[in-house]
Amino acid sequence: MTHNARQRFRAPTKLKLRDEDADDATFSSRAANPKLGKSRGKALDHERTAALIDRIAALQDKLYAQRKQKVLLILQGMDTSGKDGTVRAMFSGISPMGLRAVGFKAPTDTELAHDYLWRVHQHVPMLGEIAIFNRSHYEDVLITRVQGWINDAECKRRYAQIRDFERMLAETGTVIVKVFLHISKEEQRERLQERLDDPDKQWKFNPEDIKQRAKWDDYQRAYEKAIRETDAPHAPWYIVPANSKTHRNLVIASLLLETLEGMDLSYPPPHPDLSSFTVE
Amino acid sequence: MTHNARQRFRAPTKLKLRDEDADDATFSSRAANPKLGKSRGKALDHERTAALIDRIAALQDKLYAQRKQKVLLILQGMDTSGKDGTVRAMFSGISPMGLRAVGFKAPTDTELAHDYLWRVHQHVPMLGEIAIFNRSHYEDVLITRVQGWINDAECKRRYAQIRDFERMLAETGTVIVKVFLHISKEEQRERLQERLDDPDKQWKFNPEDIKQRAKWDDYQRAYEKAIRETDAPHAPWYIVPANSKTHRNLVIASLLLETLEGMDLSYPPPHPDLSSFTVE
Repeated sequence: MTHNARQRFRAPTKLKLRDEDADDATFSSRAANPKLGKSRGKALDHERTAALIDRIAALQDKLYAQRKQKVLLILQGMDTSGKDGTVRAMFSGISPMGLRAVGFKAPTDTELAHDYLWRVHQHVPMLGEIAIFNRSHYEDVLITRVQGWINDAECKRRYAQIRDFERMLAETGTVIVKVFLHISKEEQRERLQERLDDPDKQWKFNPEDIKQRAKWDDYQRAYEKAIRETDAPHAPWYIVPANSKTHRNLVIASLLLETLEGMDLSYPPPHPDLSSFTVE
Repeated sequence: MTHNARQRFRAPTKLKLRDEDADDATFSSRAANPKLGKSRGKALDHERTAALIDRIAALQDKLYAQRKQKVLLILQGMDTSGKDGTVRAMFSGISPMGLRAVGFKAPTDTELAHDYLWRVHQHVPMLGEIAIFNRSHYEDVLITRVQGWINDAECKRRYAQIRDFERMLAETGTVIVKVFLHISKEEQRERLQERLDDPDKQWKFNPEDIKQRAKWDDYQRAYEKAIRETDAPHAPWYIVPANSKTHRNLVIASLLLETLEGMDLSYPPPHPDLSSFTVE
């Protein structure tokens, strides 16, 4: 999988989100090469992911040393789709000094008093950094649209603004990777039910989750539309089957690795007079 | 070690930094209980650290859920003392959504145009967070003092300002842990030499490191003074032998775990009508 996840999971032009595609096995059976992207069991997924993360870490060390490019990984997905878990998996082996996770929640009063890109812009990666956005400015064309807080005309304006914003980021040295963590409605039901049943997870349960779930279809349509409208060669969307947590991590590690491999990373040259120095 | 690292490694009132105490074995042989804190080999250190980090992760989940307290871990130490490596080790198993690492480098023009606590204050942990500072406001009484950029009177004023600032943080809900990563001068020589010899590390070599190393003794005295002046029950300093990287990680994981264990952490109560909800 490590050499073509970017082709394999790239969002199609006429994206239709279907529940059955959230399951990696089903997804694979429809693909040109069903072996690609198919989970071969949790333990093996985990082992393969760890090996990829080692390679990512080696490239990230060069990215950080070189300080010439930046990487932005955007994670979006329905509630319980595994955004936190993905972030945790990536951090398990990559140096946190060059990796930054930013979670965007409901905006504060100060944030709302600015344009919706303002808070996001403050957290874009610096030279040498990989930033992971756990939710992002896409919420401003998703929940806002589904809830009717913005109308179609405003939503359309925002798609264009987001395209412009991301093009500017790309043109100024940011490599952008956008991931939709695709779970099925049934998978979400199971995960929400766990929050009701597991004493260690009960605090996470929020009646709001049930309300949002009732609008599942609206969200799927809003995602399809947002993804189609903002997919671009310099800011591609990937649709990652996420019913399996271990396989999801494997796919995202593959995407990140391939992205870094495409970036021409190397250590900067050492000090020109290196040989003249001695450490006393 | 897990139940008394906080006593074992607490900075003594009349701190004297000695090279031989940077080695965990020597350090241990002088202690009341030499078994405590002694490395029993890299592999075992690593295994024990991983077990502690699992326990830290479980408590951090509660800290994050509860959102009533905050933890600030400050890492200081000479060049090559292992600050980055410590951060990486802690992130290897703790959820990055509630853990934040902040590195403080040479201040920017904007930062210099403010008081020296301004940039630090912006990154103190929020409720539910653990923040790790890789260097901190202590640089403003260390390099600044050794280089003679501030005089004794100013340095003394800053000790008092730092005491006040940290007391305020503690009084407003922040649990503070301050760690000095103690390496010997010989250990630093070896680590700097590696930067000259290892092609993957040569880019890190900076002639400035050699200049700073020439002032080793001044730095040790500046650290002793700063630590003595700013140690407090609510903002304690720990002196962690750091010649062994694996043992250093074990000690810091122990300190963090004991700190969290002392904080009365529990999950918040679930929604009062939890049983009334069903997930369709």
